[in-house]
Amino acid sequence: MPEDQFDVIVLGAGPAGEVASGRLADAGLEVALVERHLVGGECSFYGCMPSKALLRPAQALAEVARIPGAAEAVTGTLDAAAALARRDEVIHDLDDSAQLPWIEERGITLLRGVATLDGEKAIVLDDGRRLTARRAIVLAVGSRAALPPIDGLAEAVPWTNREITTAKAVPASLVVIGGGPIGAEMAQAWRTLGAEVTLLEVADRLLLKEEPFASAQVTEASEALGVTVRTGVRIVRVERDADTGPVRVVLEGEETVEAAELLVAAGRHVPLDDLGLVTVGVKPDARGFVEVEDTMRVPGRDWLYAIGDMNGRALLTHMGKYQARIAADDILGRPTSVRLDGARSPRVTFTEPQVAAVGWTLDGALEAGLQARAVDVATSGNAGGSFYGRNAPGTARLVIDDGRGLVVGATITGADVQDFLQAATIAVVGEVPLDVLWHAVPAFPTRSEIWLRLLEKAGL
Amino acid sequence: MPEDQFDVIVLGAGPAGEVASGRLADAGLEVALVERHLVGGECSFYGCMPSKALLRPAQALAEVARIPGAAEAVTGTLDAAAALARRDEVIHDLDDSAQLPWIEERGITLLRGVATLDGEKAIVLDDGRRLTARRAIVLAVGSRAALPPIDGLAEAVPWTNREITTAKAVPASLVVIGGGPIGAEMAQAWRTLGAEVTLLEVADRLLLKEEPFASAQVTEASEALGVTVRTGVRIVRVERDADTGPVRVVLEGEETVEAAELLVAAGRHVPLDDLGLVTVGVKPDARGFVEVEDTMRVPGRDWLYAIGDMNGRALLTHMGKYQARIAADDILGRPTSVRLDGARSPRVTFTEPQVAAVGWTLDGALEAGLQARAVDVATSGNAGGSFYGRNAPGTARLVIDDGRGLVVGATITGADVQDFLQAATIAVVGEVPLDVLWHAVPAFPTRSEIWLRLLEKAGL
Repeated sequence: MPEDQFDVIVLGAGPAGEVASGRLADAGLEVALVERHLVGGECSFYGCMPSKALLRPAQALAEVARIPGAAEAVTGTLDAAAALARRDEVIHDLDDSAQLPWIEERGITLLRGVATLDGEKAIVLDDGRRLTARRAIVLAVGSRAALPPIDGLAEAVPWTNREITTAKAVPASLVVIGGGPIGAEMAQAWRTLGAEVTLLEVADRLLLKEEPFASAQVTEASEALGVTVRTGVRIVRVERDADTGPVRVVLEGEETVEAAELLVAAGRHVPLDDLGLVTVGVKPDARGFVEVEDTMRVPGRDWLYAIGDMNGRALLTHMGKYQARIAADDILGRPTSVRLDGARSPRVTFTEPQVAAVGWTLDGALEAGLQARAVDVATSGNAGGSFYGRNAPGTARLVIDDGRGLVVGATITGADVQDFLQAATIAVVGEVPLDVLWHAVPAFPTRSEIWLRLLEKAGL
Repeated sequence: MPEDQFDVIVLGAGPAGEVASGRLADAGLEVALVERHLVGGECSFYGCMPSKALLRPAQALAEVARIPGAAEAVTGTLDAAAALARRDEVIHDLDDSAQLPWIEERGITLLRGVATLDGEKAIVLDDGRRLTARRAIVLAVGSRAALPPIDGLAEAVPWTNREITTAKAVPASLVVIGGGPIGAEMAQAWRTLGAEVTLLEVADRLLLKEEPFASAQVTEASEALGVTVRTGVRIVRVERDADTGPVRVVLEGEETVEAAELLVAAGRHVPLDDLGLVTVGVKPDARGFVEVEDTMRVPGRDWLYAIGDMNGRALLTHMGKYQARIAADDILGRPTSVRLDGARSPRVTFTEPQVAAVGWTLDGALEAGLQARAVDVATSGNAGGSFYGRNAPGTARLVIDDGRGLVVGATITGADVQDFLQAATIAVVGEVPLDVLWHAVPAFPTRSEIWLRLLEKAGL
């Protein structure tokens, strides 16, 4: 077979790989993009997108129920079949052809297949073709659900994010192992669609990486929806008679939770066995994550980049896309590097209440040695809250670094607060001093007046 | 009568007067607050608050209609009686007693009555009492609807913001003179509650101070709701047989618009005839506005402040409250002054689509001599738009000052975008450079990704 050459070869056409390819192609480079499954990636088909389609109907109806004049018009109930049909529309029935024009318009060469690194700046495809890169290879192969080492779990053929987001029917009952963002979202979503749901978390609270009040509010709201939430559990083993029979999760003390289906949402890993990293002398960590510098380069390999989930920095679509822009700019010779990444990345859990956060939590800031304190207000405790998210649980917190007079973290919980986050992200990333934020007047009557109340509490 | 003395006397207990009093009292000053009508002011009882209660039900139902799975649950229609009852709850049936504990807790002396300035640092009340201020007098008397000089208008006893926001029943038909924020909001609100509505605007577009695309979208959406929108009209005279009979607005060419009620929303003025400004040598302008410096002091009178609508800078509740904080801080000897005020103030019109804006419009920036350009994207033209405000009209624009590499204006239109504004306000007030905003990563999938697309269009 002939050897094909490109300026840059990108492995993986998820959000990170697509953004990197697009930005490089827009700058005039010749780009090959290799994908083994679906162009658009885990997020588009098995993650953020279908999950939001499943969560949104109940949240919208909950909001309408808070609005006299509109509430009276809702006399029916959530239509699970319509929600599932919309989900299918959002994921294009697992057909990625809608993504292809975007790639073609940019002159990107899309190659379907499995790629393996084959020494410096080279890959081989499973059809035998060998490709070389003049400038760089960008790895963006994403992550997969990890199965924790629980006796009988693998044999029980549990659902992962792939099956839970694409299920064609509502299971009668569902048990979820893992109370992080995916587990918490899916427990609520499928409960509102009609399933009996039990959510199991080994730690003593859900959403362990977020502020404790967020965990408490999501737990309470989940229970109000009818989800059975169990934290601090010890899972002894999983039993299933056949692939399709009911599954039993056995807890310490031989207590059993039985359900029609089991979702495992207990972390992610990167199955890199076949990526050929060994041919270029790169060794991932135990979970398969590849270490990178702030330019997204693999240390010591000036032609190799790893972006998105697979570098383990921040397993979030928008952060993968951000890292893609950074990597592309570095390849293009534009000076750049990530500013806010890792645990402090902006993040939204789309539960009821939503949890939108950026930067440090209070505990995180204190552990990092900052001279930090927190100020809190009720997200709907203002005039705007008379109209939006009324009486829904919700807290807005700023974490303030008194040493520098800056906001270094924010967590906002509440109904429909996903777009509140950007203001906090700009304040944190822009390092806008508190006494300047004081002049950024929130409009009345909007819930954004949380800013006013928070800054007053901070002493302004 | 004895002469009472306070540190500060505040005239007018609307939002601006309340905030000034509260901030001064919190700092330990002895404050008298004088109100002739309702503590809480025009905004709480006849403005922002009731208008939002009337607008919100239809907007919430429009949003649900865009969400498969939820839309099917809506089988009834908007309940106007429930919306009006909620409006009554929001305005406490025009009873201001709910506001009083806040005032009492701060030790503020509330005086009911009409106050007149009586020379330097002194007022007299209509019961004859004379009060003097050790430090300052703060004027915060607000504004009233202005009646344009149209033949027969005053005799027709038109509704103003006071009657339209408190009407106990939905009129069969309504004609609105004035297509600014109040007119545009009330036309849509009462149309969705069941009235036949005609909106008349003398200028060639609604919302004249906003970007032209905002005017076009609000016009189109109003028409889709069934409002008859007429711009560029010349009103010749108004006719009404009796106070309660139908009203006829006669246009150039003798064309007539007839309706059960007439709302005039054609600007505001300050009726200061009885405020005694002449006793301290201050002369307001033709509309009654009192000029102030950036500390809210009346020039040449170091003891006299004018905040809120009555200084004519920005007739918006949140700006009145902002000016109140500035004035209070100045009285307290804390160095301060307003940063972003006047036409560039943050502002939201709560129509469908909402219009949220801060800073310059493109035309405004160009007229001010800035090296400005605009970048636009569709507010829902992103993954977040698959779930929120889907297919609703909406545009997000940044006005960029290329000379300084800063965002100097933003306009975001769309469904439920009121809380998008704070991010733009922080960017504008904080003068966060474009190349720093680039690192403020919006969460996926949220409509806040407008920031990403806008900055890409700006060349990042």
